[in-house]
Amino acid sequence: MVEKLTPMSEDFNEWYTDIIQQAQLADYSPVKGTMVIRPYGYSIWENVQSYLDKKFKETGHQNAYFPLFIPNSFIQKEAEHVEGFSPELAMVTHAGGKELEEPLVVRPTSETIINHMFAKWIKSHRDLPMLINQWANVVRWEMRTRLFLRTSEFLWQEGHTAHATESEATEEALRMLDIYSEFAENAAAVSVVKGIKSANERFAGATRTYSIEAMMKDMKALQAGTSHELGQNFSKAFEIQFSDEENNLQHPYQTSWGVSTRLIGMIIMAHGDDKGLNLPPKLAPHQVVIIPITPNEDSKGLVLDTTKKIIAELGQSFRVYLDDRDNISPGFKFNEWELKGVPLRIEIGPRDVENKSVVFSRRDGIDGKFNINFDDISSKVSETLDNIQNNLLESSKNFRKENTVHVDSYEELISALNGDPGFVTCFWDENSDDEDKVKAETKATLRCYVLAEEKTDKAVNNENTQGKLAIFSKAY
Amino acid sequence: MVEKLTPMSEDFNEWYTDIIQQAQLADYSPVKGTMVIRPYGYSIWENVQSYLDKKFKETGHQNAYFPLFIPNSFIQKEAEHVEGFSPELAMVTHAGGKELEEPLVVRPTSETIINHMFAKWIKSHRDLPMLINQWANVVRWEMRTRLFLRTSEFLWQEGHTAHATESEATEEALRMLDIYSEFAENAAAVSVVKGIKSANERFAGATRTYSIEAMMKDMKALQAGTSHELGQNFSKAFEIQFSDEENNLQHPYQTSWGVSTRLIGMIIMAHGDDKGLNLPPKLAPHQVVIIPITPNEDSKGLVLDTTKKIIAELGQSFRVYLDDRDNISPGFKFNEWELKGVPLRIEIGPRDVENKSVVFSRRDGIDGKFNINFDDISSKVSETLDNIQNNLLESSKNFRKENTVHVDSYEELISALNGDPGFVTCFWDENSDDEDKVKAETKATLRCYVLAEEKTDKAVNNENTQGKLAIFSKAY
Repeated sequence: MVEKLTPMSEDFNEWYTDIIQQAQLADYSPVKGTMVIRPYGYSIWENVQSYLDKKFKETGHQNAYFPLFIPNSFIQKEAEHVEGFSPELAMVTHAGGKELEEPLVVRPTSETIINHMFAKWIKSHRDLPMLINQWANVVRWEMRTRLFLRTSEFLWQEGHTAHATESEATEEALRMLDIYSEFAENAAAVSVVKGIKSANERFAGATRTYSIEAMMKDMKALQAGTSHELGQNFSKAFEIQFSDEENNLQHPYQTSWGVSTRLIGMIIMAHGDDKGLNLPPKLAPHQVVIIPITPNEDSKGLVLDTTKKIIAELGQSFRVYLDDRDNISPGFKFNEWELKGVPLRIEIGPRDVENKSVVFSRRDGIDGKFNINFDDISSKVSETLDNIQNNLLESSKNFRKENTVHVDSYEELISALNGDPGFVTCFWDENSDDEDKVKAETKATLRCYVLAEEKTDKAVNNENTQGKLAIFSKAY
Repeated sequence: MVEKLTPMSEDFNEWYTDIIQQAQLADYSPVKGTMVIRPYGYSIWENVQSYLDKKFKETGHQNAYFPLFIPNSFIQKEAEHVEGFSPELAMVTHAGGKELEEPLVVRPTSETIINHMFAKWIKSHRDLPMLINQWANVVRWEMRTRLFLRTSEFLWQEGHTAHATESEATEEALRMLDIYSEFAENAAAVSVVKGIKSANERFAGATRTYSIEAMMKDMKALQAGTSHELGQNFSKAFEIQFSDEENNLQHPYQTSWGVSTRLIGMIIMAHGDDKGLNLPPKLAPHQVVIIPITPNEDSKGLVLDTTKKIIAELGQSFRVYLDDRDNISPGFKFNEWELKGVPLRIEIGPRDVENKSVVFSRRDGIDGKFNINFDDISSKVSETLDNIQNNLLESSKNFRKENTVHVDSYEELISALNGDPGFVTCFWDENSDDEDKVKAETKATLRCYVLAEEKTDKAVNNENTQGKLAIFSKAY
C-alpha cells in the first residue's frame, strides 16, 4: 500500500527518507548506520555501474579486486592519510576463534593495500601507466548517517593509477573528472560544476582533489564524485619505484578517483517531487510501465493480448514493465509508479484497442495524457524518453542557475550564506582560517574553485589579492 | 618474463600456483590467507558473473545488497548454522575509536541478515516467492588456504529465496543446480555430476544440499557449486511468517545457493596443461590473440595495416587482443599467450599478406598450424572457437569417465580409494559413522549421491539394504 509521502516543502529530510522507504530503494539494517539496498535501488546502481564501467574500460582501465582487510600498519604509512581516516576505522581484532597479532582494518579506501601491490608489480617504465579500478564495499564508521548519502558501509568504485610523470597524472585525474561529469549530466541528468578543492576539503593524502558538485532541490550542494592527484605521496610511502628509459629509479605519480551509491541519493534529491522519485530514463530500472485497463471481463482478453504484442515490440529496445496485477485499481497503480519514478506510463484500455492507440503519460507531467497510434509506439517511446532525459537535465541546470548568486564582498558572502540562497560564488584567496571562519558563521563550506573559470578578480577575503572563482554552499 | 612452469606431473600443487602467478591471475596479499585478484583473473570472473547473472534474471531473481556486518546474536539464532560457522568467523570489536557493545561478525554467508530482512518484507502469500541474489565478498577464516580454492575472503553470489510450499522450494533449489550445471558444461566446458549431499557434507542449517562435482586433472573432486533447501529452519529462527490464501499464518520454505571465485580454480585445474592455462572461449578474457610478424622494416607497415583491418572486422564479434609489442620475439609471445590460455592465436607475416591468408593455431594443439584465407577469417574464428569449446567439454567428460570406477564391496571401495583412482562409485546406505570410517582409512569423502541415478542396489556398507549410487573421492 502506498503511504502518504511527506511533502518536500514541509520537511525535506522526511520527504527524502519517505521516498527511499516507500519506493523500496533501501531499508535500515539492524547494524547501526548500515543499509540494505533493495532490488529497485540496486537496479539503479547496476545501471550506474554498467554505464561507468564501459567508460573506464574504453579509457584503458582494468578491473581487479584487492582484500577487504588491511594491516593496521599500512594505514599508518602515509601521514595525512592516517590522520584523515583513523577516526572512522572499523577493526577486526579476532578471527578463527583467536585474537589477531595485528588488528586488521576494514578498508575505508584502498590506496594503502593497492600501492603495496603496485610496489611489487611496477618495476619499469614499461609497466606504466598502471590503470586499475575496483568495484567494492568500503567501511567508514560515521556518527551521523543518512541512507545512500552517508552510511557506515557503502558500495563504490575506486580507480588507482600510476604514471611516469606528473603531467600524465594530472591528465588522468582530469580525464576521470570529465567521465564523472559526463555521467552526471548525460546519464543522471544532473547538471554539475567541475571544480578543484581547497586544502581544507582535500582528500587525506592528495596533492590536488577535483570534484563535481551538484545542487539538490533543497539548494544544498552534493559532492557527487572526486578525483585526486596523489603526487608521489603514496609511491614514496610504499616505495614504488620504476626504472625510467635512462635506467634511473623514479617514484611514479599517482591518482585515485571514486563515485559511490551516494549517486542514488543525488538522483532522488535532484529530480524528485511530492509525488516521489523521478528517474532519468537512462538509469531507470523500468523506462516504461504498461498498465492494461480492464474494466469488464468481455474485453479483458483482447486488451491483454494487445498489451502483450506491444510489450513484445517495445521489449526489444526498452526496459518495459507490465503491471497486470488483478484487484488493484488503475489509479492506485498510477500513484505507485509515479512514486517509483518510472519515466513513461502507457495505458491501454478497451476503447484504445478499438481506436488502435494507447495513452502516454510522462512522469515529469509535461503534455498531460496524450494518444499515440499503434504504428508509432516504438518511435514515440524513443522520442519521449529522450525528451524526458533532456528536460530533466535542463531543469537541473536552470534550477542551479536560478539559485546561484555572486557576491563581491565578505559581508555580502556571509549574509547571502545565512539566507539559504543555494550556491554563492565569489573571488576567493585560498586561506584555511578564513574558510573556517565562514563555516563557523554560516555552516557553509568552500565547495570548490570553478575549473572552467580562469578569470581572477579582487578576492572578497583579501582585497589586495586576485582571487579565484569559488563556490560556497551548505552541503551534504 | 615467462619463468619455468613446474610440470603438472611433477607437482600438481606447484603447477597450479605457478600458473596463477605467472599468468597473473592472482597474487598473495599481505594479509594471511587473502588474495589479490589481478585484472586477467578478474576478467574471467566478470565473464562468469555476466553469464550467470543473465540466467538468474531470466528465472525471476533480482539483485540486492545486504550489509557486510552481522550482529553476533544473529549468527547464534539457527543452531546448526552457528555450529558450522563459528570456528571461521572474523569479528569487528572496535569501530570509530570505541569498543562496540556487541561484536559484529564479518559475513561468512548471509542467511541470517537476509532472513532478518525477509521477516520485515514478507507478510502475505502475495509477497512470495521472494527471489533475491547478492554478488558480494564473504570472509571465512580458513587455516589452510589455497589461491581461488580456499581463501579467507572470496567473491561469490548467494541466492536466497522464500516460497509458500516445500515443493516450490525443492523446485527452486533444483532449478538453480541446473543453472550451475549448465554453466559448468556450456560456459566453463567442465563436465559435472549433479548430486545430493549426505548429512555429513550438508550445509550448516540446510535440510538438503545439492552440488555439482567436477573432476580435476589430478583426479580429485571439486565441489563447484551448491544449492540448499533450508526447509523452515531459518524462517522459524527468524520468525518469517506470511498469511496464506485462507489467512492462516505460515512459515515459508527457503533455499540458498552459491558459486564463488573457486570456479576460476576449477577452470585452471580442469583444462590446464604443462604450457599453462587453457581457457574455454566463452569465458576467456581474450578469445583470440593476433600477433603480427614483422621480420623487416620494409614490410612492417603493410603487415600492421592488414592486421588492423582484420582486428576491425573480428572485434565486432569476438574478444580480440593485438600483441604488437616491439623488441619481443614471436616465440616469446607464443609462449606467453599459451601460458595465459588464449584459445586461438592468429599470426600474420609478410608472406601471409602476400598470400592473402593468416595462420591459425589452437591453444588445445589440435590441427597444428593451419592457413585461413582473408575472406574466411570471421567464419573460421567462430567455427574454431566453437570447436575448442566443445573439445574442452568432451575431454573433460572423457577424463572423468576414464577415471571413474564402480565397486561392489566395502573392501573394494577402500582399496580403490587408496589407489588414487579418481571417482569411485558404489551403492551406499546413508550412514555418517561409515562415512567417517572411509575418510579415516582413505582421506576420501562421499561427494554426493548421483541425482540422475534412480536405481538402487545392495549397499556396500550394509548388504541387507538397498543403497543409492554414491561417489567417493578425495576432494578440494
